[in-house]
Amino acid sequence: MGSVNDVLITPLQKIEAEGGDVLHAMKSTDIGFQGFGEAYFSWVTGGSIKAWKRHNMMTMNLVVPIGNVRFVFFSMKECRFRIEDIGSDRYARLTVPPGIWFGFQGLASYNSLVLNLSNIVHDPDEVSRMQLSEIQYSW
Amino acid sequence: MGSVNDVLITPLQKIEAEGGDVLHAMKSTDIGFQGFGEAYFSWVTGGSIKAWKRHNMMTMNLVVPIGNVRFVFFSMKECRFRIEDIGSDRYARLTVPPGIWFGFQGLASYNSLVLNLSNIVHDPDEVSRMQLSEIQYSW
Repeated sequence: MGSVNDVLITPLQKIEAEGGDVLHAMKSTDIGFQGFGEAYFSWVTGGSIKAWKRHNMMTMNLVVPIGNVRFVFFSMKECRFRIEDIGSDRYARLTVPPGIWFGFQGLASYNSLVLNLSNIVHDPDEVSRMQLSEIQYSW
Repeated sequence: MGSVNDVLITPLQKIEAEGGDVLHAMKSTDIGFQGFGEAYFSWVTGGSIKAWKRHNMMTMNLVVPIGNVRFVFFSMKECRFRIEDIGSDRYARLTVPPGIWFGFQGLASYNSLVLNLSNIVHDPDEVSRMQLSEIQYSW
């Protein structure tokens, strides 16, 4: 099972442009790229918590182009949390290897948007889930 | 040079979920996938026009998770336009092969967001540009 220390955080560029800024997300040459399987978005409404999941095969690359999201990672072996907030206030990418429990919460009052660039196509069989109450964290 | 007929439009799924919906963007097994080079976002402010560009190598896969965007494609050989609006009102992906002139406009009063999943890493040398006035289109 993965350690929360193995989560990578990579600052990303925002480029000002007339008519609307350009925001980097990921290049195939970037650190953390493990191949492309699927890209999908998850909205998180203000204050909402989505937890807990663990991918057993998937490496996630997470970017938040709108709003701000708190990601909480939990390493069961070490019984240790790691918290990373990303989004408009800290525009960065999180690379999450398989084997780490995680949950996330919308920090903005409005909806936040998470893009996951994953190295495999979504497969419900590689996902483990627990109820929110099964890992004690004070959100 | 490409024909505007070669632009593919693929409807995408929105999945309702507690705490915020999940929106599909692209799987490596989907029609239109030509390999992964880079993912980046472009904001388009309400009414703004970004035009004209032509990628000479890149296949773009365009998704609009927020707002609505009008894409105008122009085939110089055929002297023909093709217009596709995508976004919240018509959640779909546009696959744009290289060799087609295009521009786009934010249709929402607020900012719209475009995700481009491209098959190559951004390279300014493979992009051709023209001024807005060089192709006559009434936006």
